[in-house]
Amino acid sequence: MDLAALKIDIAEVPTEENPQLVLQKSRDFYWYSPVLKRQLDSVKADIVARPRNEDELLLVVGACFKNEVPLTVRGSGTGNYGQAMPLAGGLVLDLCNMNRVIEVKNGTVVAEPGAILADIDKVTRPTGQELRMFPSTYHTASIGGFIAGGSGGVGSVRWGGLRDVGNIVRVKMAAMDGSIPTVLDLSGRDINRVSHAYGTTGVITEVEMPLAPAVEWVDLITAFPTLEAAVHHGEALAAADGLLLKNVAVMDAAIAPYLRRHKPYLPDGEAFVVTIAASFAAGDVAALGKRAGGRVVLRTDTLEAEARSRLPPAFELSWNHTTLRALRMDPDITYLQVLYPQPGIAGKVLKMSALLGEEAPTHLEFVRFDGAVGCFGLPLVRFTTEERLDEIIALHEDNGCPIFNPHRYTLEEGGMKQTDPLQLGFKRRSDPKGLLNPGKMIAWDDPDFDYGRPYLFPSLSA
Amino acid sequence: MDLAALKIDIAEVPTEENPQLVLQKSRDFYWYSPVLKRQLDSVKADIVARPRNEDELLLVVGACFKNEVPLTVRGSGTGNYGQAMPLAGGLVLDLCNMNRVIEVKNGTVVAEPGAILADIDKVTRPTGQELRMFPSTYHTASIGGFIAGGSGGVGSVRWGGLRDVGNIVRVKMAAMDGSIPTVLDLSGRDINRVSHAYGTTGVITEVEMPLAPAVEWVDLITAFPTLEAAVHHGEALAAADGLLLKNVAVMDAAIAPYLRRHKPYLPDGEAFVVTIAASFAAGDVAALGKRAGGRVVLRTDTLEAEARSRLPPAFELSWNHTTLRALRMDPDITYLQVLYPQPGIAGKVLKMSALLGEEAPTHLEFVRFDGAVGCFGLPLVRFTTEERLDEIIALHEDNGCPIFNPHRYTLEEGGMKQTDPLQLGFKRRSDPKGLLNPGKMIAWDDPDFDYGRPYLFPSLSA
Repeated sequence: MDLAALKIDIAEVPTEENPQLVLQKSRDFYWYSPVLKRQLDSVKADIVARPRNEDELLLVVGACFKNEVPLTVRGSGTGNYGQAMPLAGGLVLDLCNMNRVIEVKNGTVVAEPGAILADIDKVTRPTGQELRMFPSTYHTASIGGFIAGGSGGVGSVRWGGLRDVGNIVRVKMAAMDGSIPTVLDLSGRDINRVSHAYGTTGVITEVEMPLAPAVEWVDLITAFPTLEAAVHHGEALAAADGLLLKNVAVMDAAIAPYLRRHKPYLPDGEAFVVTIAASFAAGDVAALGKRAGGRVVLRTDTLEAEARSRLPPAFELSWNHTTLRALRMDPDITYLQVLYPQPGIAGKVLKMSALLGEEAPTHLEFVRFDGAVGCFGLPLVRFTTEERLDEIIALHEDNGCPIFNPHRYTLEEGGMKQTDPLQLGFKRRSDPKGLLNPGKMIAWDDPDFDYGRPYLFPSLSA
Repeated sequence: MDLAALKIDIAEVPTEENPQLVLQKSRDFYWYSPVLKRQLDSVKADIVARPRNEDELLLVVGACFKNEVPLTVRGSGTGNYGQAMPLAGGLVLDLCNMNRVIEVKNGTVVAEPGAILADIDKVTRPTGQELRMFPSTYHTASIGGFIAGGSGGVGSVRWGGLRDVGNIVRVKMAAMDGSIPTVLDLSGRDINRVSHAYGTTGVITEVEMPLAPAVEWVDLITAFPTLEAAVHHGEALAAADGLLLKNVAVMDAAIAPYLRRHKPYLPDGEAFVVTIAASFAAGDVAALGKRAGGRVVLRTDTLEAEARSRLPPAFELSWNHTTLRALRMDPDITYLQVLYPQPGIAGKVLKMSALLGEEAPTHLEFVRFDGAVGCFGLPLVRFTTEERLDEIIALHEDNGCPIFNPHRYTLEEGGMKQTDPLQLGFKRRSDPKGLLNPGKMIAWDDPDFDYGRPYLFPSLSA
């Protein structure tokens, strides 16, 4: 890597070399995991570049290729798996300056990758449209980072996962394949070459996302005497094709204390379901909850304005914001990502809850998955040792509940358990020198890796 | 029944007594069924009333109560089961004059029951919204008739059935319970008291329906060398949570000749899938079809304007318009309504196709059903005798495919196979004299009826 030559080549692009600021931009939300915190705390780039447009972006990518400088792309750095952290040093490509919403169409929006999700919706909402799905970091996360590192979230209960066909319309990307990088417009299945690839196969320069109707949304919380009743209500809501819902989360009673501002509404010792529903569907959600044995303890459409203004939106109680809130109050808490497969979702959830009890309070997020109801768990885990964490993971897997391990920074170990041949094959052409986010795709670094043990990128074992 | 007194009581309301016109308004599309045609051909009301507003409607309902005149409500009369036919004579309440769209909100529309579906959308579309679902008679059917007699249709592949919670927001109805009828505003589960009740429990006076985003829709037809490949493609499309689709119909090669204007695009001997997709999802639909072994033979977004203008919209090839087109060319054709249950939809479809061959060409409509992919069949049936029709029905049921018999005019025999206790209980209060659409709810007329034989209303056996 020839950093001196790189700096000359990209002189016209804004850069940052102040060590404290470079360190800050070399981090994401990896500290959700005590394991990643231990492994990645010293990771740091050499320089941060902040291109203001596609021309500048291509200049940086081309200069990195020429000077053999590793490049790690970063949106807002709100990912949880160290995916935006530069294990091999080099350059962090911070896309915060490429944040324009380019065009709102009938059904889609075109934006630069650094555009913040909430800012995109500010532009689309006057047209009666909004993004279909977003992570709980909606107010800070970028659309490019969501595509490169996310998998779904709020909205997935209607639209499925981000990688499901139709949920990304088009992605424009730059390859790391020459001093003048190749630019590709990907649609259809080809989008998977860059989606959820942590920026290992290319740099997203523009995206087109499908939109959903922007209706008025209402937050509801329904409390239940048992976790079982809450799980059944959550599953019934997720199965209701005619109810326009944006999110359905189920939480065990032990989670209530961590949702501080909502705590006054949450009855002690009761499980609860947090739902985001179209205003005209809120009455149906409430009625279904009552018939399932619950009582509605909060409805933002009937709450007085002042009380409402003190509450964060329900999506900031959901997905990884649940974990975040617990973590802030108790630094020993971490989490897992579980899939409770069909059929018999509720049975699997209750079994794991019975096996782990207070060590791992239940937190579920219902989604649509291949045309049916799916259920992910993000249980809080009271962390003791890495060995015990591995035992808890094994206990889930032994009981038919696969884990997408959030304590690993590689693509393969996080979820897929195997190389994506499409991404690997594409990387051979789009990044022949292996400069894009080194260390995140095991299949590239160590094709013969034995998945029986955790992968450690060479620079980290020094 | 005192018709003379009735006429005096409703003198201010427009009425019709010309026998030809009364006969015409005493019919619906019952002639889809050779069985119903034989049974119902002589059915005729005594008078037709056409109120212009809710006050006039209530005057007619109250006068019928007072003078004990049977009342059968009618929208546009596009139903197929004789549901709008006055078996006991009396008054037909034709709601064609109550056709106003009252208000378009963010997410819903409020309309009078006689409003035509296509006319409602003309008002909602400038707001970027449209009805979620409609029958293939979109251009002629009324919203009240759809709710009272329909079950879903185009749009159900995303939103499920009309009776699924959330697909009707509110229904205002008049009971037949006094000279001044009680008016009720129903929401939530109470809506089922009048939805799909054929007007036996009350008269719908106003509805509020949820809306979906009004995007640009594209019709696609993909041809496949085998029915099996077409069925698998249809099921895959229906399962794609992220694809914004409005309809997915699968048809065997034998149906092509009946779709006359589309015939030039349909390869001889090939099965085909007719899809209505959001314009930004059309490329994905085409790519999925190709990967499933098909070829796209028609895409309205790439067709030249003149050719496109000669084609009816794809929804008029679907649901009962498929039957209608066949029936027009061959009067011996009728149809059935089949449910192919999960799991193993494709296997059941192919088995029935193998058993019946050319006698009942396969026509499928994919929907969402309780949170999963559902599949209804509307096979064309080359009618010979009523006995053979019953054999074909039995053959389906023996192979695990329930039939919703479209050759019966009662609520129970058509689909539910049993009384809806909610509707029956409600009717006791809302129609104590049994004047609303007599003969359509067996449980009311003959609580001890043995469902082993077809029900015949007394006046029809004369």
